[in-house]
Amino acid sequence: MSEIVKVALAGLGTVGGGVAKLLIEQSDILYNRTGKKIELIAVSDLDKSKVASLNLPNSVQYYDDALKMIDETTADIVVELIGGADGIAYKICQKALAAGKNFVTANKAMIAHHGNEMAKMAEQSGSEIGFEASVAGGIPIIKSVREGLIGNKINEVYGILNGTCNYILTVMRETGKPFDEVLADAQKLGYAEQDPSFDIDGIDTAHKISILGSLAFSMPIDFDSLSIEGIRHISALDIAFSEELGMRIKLLGVGRKTEKGVSLNVYPCMIPQTSEIAHVDGVFNAVVTEGDFVGHSMFVGRGAGERPTASAVVSDIADIAQNRSVPMFNIRKGTLSELQKISLSERCGEYYVRFEVIDQPGVVADIARILGKEGVSISSMIQRGKTGKTVPLMMTLHEAVEAKVQKALNEIEQLSTVTAKPCMIRIERL
Amino acid sequence: MSEIVKVALAGLGTVGGGVAKLLIEQSDILYNRTGKKIELIAVSDLDKSKVASLNLPNSVQYYDDALKMIDETTADIVVELIGGADGIAYKICQKALAAGKNFVTANKAMIAHHGNEMAKMAEQSGSEIGFEASVAGGIPIIKSVREGLIGNKINEVYGILNGTCNYILTVMRETGKPFDEVLADAQKLGYAEQDPSFDIDGIDTAHKISILGSLAFSMPIDFDSLSIEGIRHISALDIAFSEELGMRIKLLGVGRKTEKGVSLNVYPCMIPQTSEIAHVDGVFNAVVTEGDFVGHSMFVGRGAGERPTASAVVSDIADIAQNRSVPMFNIRKGTLSELQKISLSERCGEYYVRFEVIDQPGVVADIARILGKEGVSISSMIQRGKTGKTVPLMMTLHEAVEAKVQKALNEIEQLSTVTAKPCMIRIERL
Repeated sequence: MSEIVKVALAGLGTVGGGVAKLLIEQSDILYNRTGKKIELIAVSDLDKSKVASLNLPNSVQYYDDALKMIDETTADIVVELIGGADGIAYKICQKALAAGKNFVTANKAMIAHHGNEMAKMAEQSGSEIGFEASVAGGIPIIKSVREGLIGNKINEVYGILNGTCNYILTVMRETGKPFDEVLADAQKLGYAEQDPSFDIDGIDTAHKISILGSLAFSMPIDFDSLSIEGIRHISALDIAFSEELGMRIKLLGVGRKTEKGVSLNVYPCMIPQTSEIAHVDGVFNAVVTEGDFVGHSMFVGRGAGERPTASAVVSDIADIAQNRSVPMFNIRKGTLSELQKISLSERCGEYYVRFEVIDQPGVVADIARILGKEGVSISSMIQRGKTGKTVPLMMTLHEAVEAKVQKALNEIEQLSTVTAKPCMIRIERL
Repeated sequence: MSEIVKVALAGLGTVGGGVAKLLIEQSDILYNRTGKKIELIAVSDLDKSKVASLNLPNSVQYYDDALKMIDETTADIVVELIGGADGIAYKICQKALAAGKNFVTANKAMIAHHGNEMAKMAEQSGSEIGFEASVAGGIPIIKSVREGLIGNKINEVYGILNGTCNYILTVMRETGKPFDEVLADAQKLGYAEQDPSFDIDGIDTAHKISILGSLAFSMPIDFDSLSIEGIRHISALDIAFSEELGMRIKLLGVGRKTEKGVSLNVYPCMIPQTSEIAHVDGVFNAVVTEGDFVGHSMFVGRGAGERPTASAVVSDIADIAQNRSVPMFNIRKGTLSELQKISLSERCGEYYVRFEVIDQPGVVADIARILGKEGVSISSMIQRGKTGKTVPLMMTLHEAVEAKVQKALNEIEQLSTVTAKPCMIRIERL
């Protein structure tokens, strides 16, 4: 890379605007640190008015068409901050890599769905791909896993990867309010989208943990193999009882590698309050890794937003500007291999379950009998005063195989005294 | 760097042994990730028996003299893991850099005392210096600050940087035992040295925060300007009262940069229990950074020990093997500049103070009068039942300039009713 590194930026939304600001405001710092003049030479956005609000230097060319921008400029690095797994974002990626440009993105959906092809394209054209901003926003977790922990076999990686969910769960705990109400408030405050399903149903977390899992375990991205569960079913009662149990509920992406294979999933967990990650609240993200030499490490920071995400995007630009290249999936081509996947039904762990039952003799006995039949034993039980015709009944279960727990819950759901689908939350002693 | 990268390792103590093991056990992983064969070609230690216990391949040459090892081998990277700011460790450093070798060390004392000269020597010979392991063991904090947060002006960096102190403070909290007893136990368990002063008087923390401060604020190392306070004066009472106040006591290295200048110090702090760093317990380390784009970030992990420290040393080796170089103090030569230092006496903050007083009328009035004279106002006060002829009296003070608090405390110490030197702990609302 020559002394002047030219950047073309596609997408001037929240993050794109932040990157433009950072490159301009901190150009001296970046030059002093990297020895390279990193110049924003072109930007593209369908909406030209966004350019005006950014006060860009006159030297920055505007395009309404990002593909045309790639054709007509001599950028060393194309930055895509439009989003979406496919569509224009992926066209930009393909065109940039085909043209031998280096490519930087914050697009977790694209990497989760097309990461393997992207890595292949980059290899063929000799380009670099930077995607630090795709996981956990401002936290330099991709750099830490691929470079900082390079000497380690990582056998576990998990984290709070979605600020919206963490915010909702935090406010539910602090206020005792139900999920729907807190979600509605979060939408008003701009912490949740009008269509929140991408966040609260765990898809966004799944994109991120699938990326982290690939890096940590050196395997190709395999988004479709993930089991994904969101937080819609978490009630104020579950939150209150988790506190009584000395636990806290967090939506986690969880990746584990054992001799049997790799499990990579997204689900809400009850974790002990003594765990550090239990105290990562609000919109913050956190990632925990377990390496065979380094042991337990945790990385906490802002997982989204204009400025934190811009910080991550620019760290990729700086790395590429300085020729600090790293294999995309933390391993050189040819050495990446598929690993055996372990499904969530094989999980062996503890569980919290909540039933809504008609308050009459024999209910607990029926439930206990069905659990017992599957070899699942109860570790603790709480029943509280009536809330109407039915009462909530909470149990924690000793370590058991999930398929058996699930089978028992399905049978319990059929009982005439059980009035709603049982709620199950996995307990993780992190 | 050619495909084979040759490493010579000086010092086969705990960390050196760990590095040798990692390089050998994980050589396949390192090759797959870096594309380089990283070969341990020579080791040195005064004690030859250490070599035998490591089961090194026959190809590894043994030297009792590290300087001779540098002369007689063709290592690309010399790793120094002997320790000590001066003596043989620094001679190895000087000889390696003079010979144009790359140099990797975990030696915080050496960098804190000689970092500026080391950077100059490395520039002159075109060598790289790696020192990830010198701060916070396995946490990739130097990489995160210099590379991950490269687009940020960092205005605050602080952390729990000494596992021995954090372990002692954690056990004091959990058991209610006094400092001396917990220290003695820690010594028996091997968590504290027989001469513990280096750790418990804050020197080790000071070495580390002086390095982090230099990187974060892009200034030369200036260890002598630090004010350093350890944890010997923390009593079981202080710990108990901090809990009552919803706070927790941690020994922190604290660096701040404002328009007035830079303050860089080590002292025990009371921090709110709602702060994440309050929950980093035992031998763990944590570093928090505040960057102008990325905002608040925290990095947690094992700060010492054979394997975590080896993980950090090897990440430096891998970076150098792949030519991923970074300016030592996060800024290219010529742009590093001295910054105005702010002394701790100028600190403006809250304080916790504990007095041992004779339980008679007028004592509190005397103390309050002296504080008031200096413009220091009391925010809360607790006095508990007699412990003998004297009683402990705890106060928290509203925000005040430290010089005034110190002046008042000196005057209070002279009161005939005050029987011991007042204990003061700074409150940091982190």
